[in-house]
Amino acid sequence: MLELDIKIPAMPEGGYPIRIGTDILGSLWPRIEADFDKYSKFVVTDENLVSAGHLQKLLGQRDIPAFTISPAGEASKTIDTAIAIIEAMEKAYLGRDTLVVALGGGTVGDIAGFAAAVFKRGVPVLQIPTSTVAQADSAVGGKTGVDSSMSKNAFGAFWHPAGVYIDTVILKTLDERQFRAGLVESVKHAIIADSEYFDFLEENLDAVLQRKPDVLEKIAERNCRIKGSVVEADPREQNQRRSLNYGHTIGHAVEAASGFELLHGEAVAIGIIAAGLIEIEMELAQPGRLDRIRGILEKLGVPVKLPADMAEEKLIDLIKRDKKAVNKWPRFVLISRIGEVYRQDGQYAVEVSAELVTTVLQKL
Amino acid sequence: MLELDIKIPAMPEGGYPIRIGTDILGSLWPRIEADFDKYSKFVVTDENLVSAGHLQKLLGQRDIPAFTISPAGEASKTIDTAIAIIEAMEKAYLGRDTLVVALGGGTVGDIAGFAAAVFKRGVPVLQIPTSTVAQADSAVGGKTGVDSSMSKNAFGAFWHPAGVYIDTVILKTLDERQFRAGLVESVKHAIIADSEYFDFLEENLDAVLQRKPDVLEKIAERNCRIKGSVVEADPREQNQRRSLNYGHTIGHAVEAASGFELLHGEAVAIGIIAAGLIEIEMELAQPGRLDRIRGILEKLGVPVKLPADMAEEKLIDLIKRDKKAVNKWPRFVLISRIGEVYRQDGQYAVEVSAELVTTVLQKL
Repeated sequence: MLELDIKIPAMPEGGYPIRIGTDILGSLWPRIEADFDKYSKFVVTDENLVSAGHLQKLLGQRDIPAFTISPAGEASKTIDTAIAIIEAMEKAYLGRDTLVVALGGGTVGDIAGFAAAVFKRGVPVLQIPTSTVAQADSAVGGKTGVDSSMSKNAFGAFWHPAGVYIDTVILKTLDERQFRAGLVESVKHAIIADSEYFDFLEENLDAVLQRKPDVLEKIAERNCRIKGSVVEADPREQNQRRSLNYGHTIGHAVEAASGFELLHGEAVAIGIIAAGLIEIEMELAQPGRLDRIRGILEKLGVPVKLPADMAEEKLIDLIKRDKKAVNKWPRFVLISRIGEVYRQDGQYAVEVSAELVTTVLQKL
Repeated sequence: MLELDIKIPAMPEGGYPIRIGTDILGSLWPRIEADFDKYSKFVVTDENLVSAGHLQKLLGQRDIPAFTISPAGEASKTIDTAIAIIEAMEKAYLGRDTLVVALGGGTVGDIAGFAAAVFKRGVPVLQIPTSTVAQADSAVGGKTGVDSSMSKNAFGAFWHPAGVYIDTVILKTLDERQFRAGLVESVKHAIIADSEYFDFLEENLDAVLQRKPDVLEKIAERNCRIKGSVVEADPREQNQRRSLNYGHTIGHAVEAASGFELLHGEAVAIGIIAAGLIEIEMELAQPGRLDRIRGILEKLGVPVKLPADMAEEKLIDLIKRDKKAVNKWPRFVLISRIGEVYRQDGQYAVEVSAELVTTVLQKL
């Protein structure tokens, strides 16, 4: 099992470990018991993970209280679900000495992380991410949140996990479309931070898509290193952490405009192409660079063009409402080359005019 | 206006200011606008503060979105109220660049602080405490929380305020019983940390009860210095901050056993006497010490004995469920002399047997 340590000085413990391995789920519980021997345990998962046998594999015959989110997926990522989890913890007579174990994809991690952040002013959460997007992105970094009836992540907290365990074998049961869309965050990491990793992904994409364990371990490790180092440098997203938002400003608008028919990673893929087109307009791109990026995304089978029925005006309106917008227009993350974010006066998010974005959307 | 600075290294800003004055409410808003010029403002208050004219005095003719908690008081300190506040912020199109201004007593501060802690992963909150208990205690220190249908503060966060403004004139409109009960936290501060402050309270209690502004400013300043220094040393309550819990372990049980008929400060007064009796049993008390403490509490007009119908077994059961209990029995904060907490092996909360506590409750 591979181990990394993420250093977060603001945490009382100074940080947390990430452990990556293949087929480790069945032997994880004794380790969790040893690492957190003073804590009662409470598991949060969803019905898909239960059906796939993963909860059973994690717990074996142990009698551990658990909450199963149903239905699985974004529709359950609400404050009501978080309240139901906390009431279940109260009914199990759990107190501050409780470890919440989140077994699931991004949705489970977000909900369980938020519930842990606010239960009796905060209890630790251990993340066991089970999807490509959660293993690459959401399990590391400490962002948690649930939706209100009006908007996404209206409720949330920065709450770093007490640890992250990644078992790449769990990905074998993941739905193909989810699997592929989740890999877009891996491509994003390579684009913003690591050109060698980009080369590796280009060369090994077939093995990735065949879900070969050694390759999946390698990309899990790379993703955690990249995301971890950015989070270490800027845990509360004052500046550098914004680089993780590459492709996301337009991506979020596309995701919302699709009525969430597009998966997050699919929308971000379109957003990455849009960022590439902005870079060309702003003369930040080397010849052929966007073609390489488009090539890898096409091979992943994710969209690289706007859906035909998606109006630019609608997207511009959604971009104005971006939660990072100041004076109703957000800044954008761009790259100077593959592996390096473009900075202006030290800022990782830079000004791009609405006119230029409109031009790019028309070409997309 | 008197200014203190509370240093919290874990905060990105490094801490926050406390400003104390007399009749400053009407001139505060321009100062808030200047200090937080990049933020939209949202006020949370309650119907009592509105009736007393304090919201009007704070805002003048300005058109600032506000949420009025109704009914005022503990019954509204629920997750439902926090959700209603967040939805009101969304309806006002507020984003991450929002400052929540909490104008009210402990309940308003707790709810507004929690809403600010979780709105879009956290926005700053400015506390303008309007009761003796909030000015002495809850506005400083960063504890926020709301109740579930099952228990108190089931939802909460450590969320330090961006600033605290204390206007002692607001206390003039406070109900006499609330006013007196809130002063128990001031007595507690003197007992655990400052014998000169204890002398001052003994000598000036008539002036305090007459709500003389200069004396109220003096005790606001002492309370903030004492609580602030403890919070600075131990913001997340790992050890020293527990000293603030003096009188509270038994006090919380008495409060719950009374069905919350007793005010928090009234129950803590009984808890302080219980702590004094434990100290006598454990031979930690100087002769006459408890009489001085009892004298000041009697002069405040708060109870110093258990209500006649309150059974010891019920209290012992509630103490077992204390949220800080480990293996179903909490530790207790005791003093070695007025102004100094008793420590064992560096610990501010020490072991006291259930037998000894039962003996003391029978004498109370």
